[in-house]
Amino acid sequence: MPTRLRGVLAPALTPFTADLEPDAGRFIAHCRWLVDNHAGLAIFGTNSEAASLSVAERIALTDALLDAGIPAAKMMPGTGACSITDAVALTRHAVRHGVAGVLMIPPFYYKGVSDDGVFAYYSEVIERVGDDRLAIYLYHFPLLTQVPITLGLIERLLKRYPRSIAGAKDSSGDWNNSKAMIDTYAASGFDVFPASEALLSKALAIGGAGCISATVNVNPAGIHAVFTHWDQAEGERLQVQADTVRKIFQATTMIPAMKRVVSEFAHDPGWRTVRPPLTAMDDVPAAALLASLRDAQFDMPGYPRG
Amino acid sequence: MPTRLRGVLAPALTPFTADLEPDAGRFIAHCRWLVDNHAGLAIFGTNSEAASLSVAERIALTDALLDAGIPAAKMMPGTGACSITDAVALTRHAVRHGVAGVLMIPPFYYKGVSDDGVFAYYSEVIERVGDDRLAIYLYHFPLLTQVPITLGLIERLLKRYPRSIAGAKDSSGDWNNSKAMIDTYAASGFDVFPASEALLSKALAIGGAGCISATVNVNPAGIHAVFTHWDQAEGERLQVQADTVRKIFQATTMIPAMKRVVSEFAHDPGWRTVRPPLTAMDDVPAAALLASLRDAQFDMPGYPRG
Repeated sequence: MPTRLRGVLAPALTPFTADLEPDAGRFIAHCRWLVDNHAGLAIFGTNSEAASLSVAERIALTDALLDAGIPAAKMMPGTGACSITDAVALTRHAVRHGVAGVLMIPPFYYKGVSDDGVFAYYSEVIERVGDDRLAIYLYHFPLLTQVPITLGLIERLLKRYPRSIAGAKDSSGDWNNSKAMIDTYAASGFDVFPASEALLSKALAIGGAGCISATVNVNPAGIHAVFTHWDQAEGERLQVQADTVRKIFQATTMIPAMKRVVSEFAHDPGWRTVRPPLTAMDDVPAAALLASLRDAQFDMPGYPRG
Repeated sequence: MPTRLRGVLAPALTPFTADLEPDAGRFIAHCRWLVDNHAGLAIFGTNSEAASLSVAERIALTDALLDAGIPAAKMMPGTGACSITDAVALTRHAVRHGVAGVLMIPPFYYKGVSDDGVFAYYSEVIERVGDDRLAIYLYHFPLLTQVPITLGLIERLLKRYPRSIAGAKDSSGDWNNSKAMIDTYAASGFDVFPASEALLSKALAIGGAGCISATVNVNPAGIHAVFTHWDQAEGERLQVQADTVRKIFQATTMIPAMKRVVSEFAHDPGWRTVRPPLTAMDDVPAAALLASLRDAQFDMPGYPRG
């Protein structure tokens, strides 16, 4: 069994070259900076444009990180897919390379599917991967998938696969749901990560494991400081500081906005590129975003120049 | 340029073996029966559980049909995917083998994407495939994807790629939308297929091209009779007959229900299998469904025994 990841994880942004191919060089540099700033790597999440990547592209990018010496123990790759075939291929590759865990979104094409169907999906993947090192974090994002990870489903999965089901990322944005997950299952070793640092202090106070949040891509040190100091004198001030940055990004279309900000701090316009159907941020809103960040004394210290 | 498909197409059901692998033998038999009953093959649509298949599985099943002598000219495979990489691989393979067209769903993971982003997606696929034989049917299914194919998007795509954009499947279920697509673009050679035979006579009367409908899988001859006779004396009676069958299936969860009915007429319980997250139909609702179909004198004449 791999050591459990706790703390602050980034759904790492995926850079693309001008001809829209995944850019391993920029990806390695970004992930290394995140790790240097105490962030775990939830590569291939929603904010990674993972759905816009093929299975082979995700595997090649993972291999590139590993070859560059980024530790697998810091990784929680997204390996969910609409097809069990794809999910098994991704999960098997990740587990074989010793990742800390995998973050699995349920199949998201069909709507109105039953808990029985979602249970059967996870069950089939677990059985096919057939590896004791497998640690699955269930990805609850009902607004986007319309396929919720219900408390009842967690109960059934934990009962049947207590070794393989390690926790959840809760992207519902609903504190009551995160709280219910933690209150009900944290004692069984089920590690809950809300999807925003805005809930980090609250979650840690009742037994949550950390957070997996988009803005860890741009503010890893600030959010990590909340994780390490939430119960100390400066905890509240650090939480407010992190929230201030979060709110600035939340007012934008997050993925293109974060890429634009990285491109500024990397002095590298190539970072602005997104894959369709997303579109890059226009210059006018980008200028406003950068002005807001300057006002908040935002910085990305030590970010490598492109 | 391939000859345009018109008429009645089935989003062909995809059979699976007991261990949930795609079953090429049953698939060939099913598609051959459909073609024998004058249906075109919109393989890998929503009702084909296409989202539950990997790219390699879709390509292998297409090859199996071609190797079995099913004509590519009858095929309109679904080649859309969340990732341009996957969409290009599927589309390139289909076009190279001479299919009549491809049915492309827009990328469906991200919500609230702009027409600019969806345009960029189709544009990128068309440019990468780079083949004059490419004929794309845009797949409009807003309830499921939340990424609509708007009239404005069709206009832009037709203007930029008049040879590659061939038409649309309209799964909105909204006659006014199908009518607007036909009224606005049919004269430019844009072939519109509503997603239900219930709209077939109406669509044909104003210049629609046919229909691509789930229930063509079980009632191809009955729906084809509407296509050939809608403007003749018996047209209305045939439309009512087809609608009666449609309504019976529409009261169920369509994919497992159609598979259950095929399993009955094929005398082959193996046909009941679906891939997660779908679940097979239970016996009690199946008995009620089969009773309703018997009352309506439903039959699948000549369906091959499994």
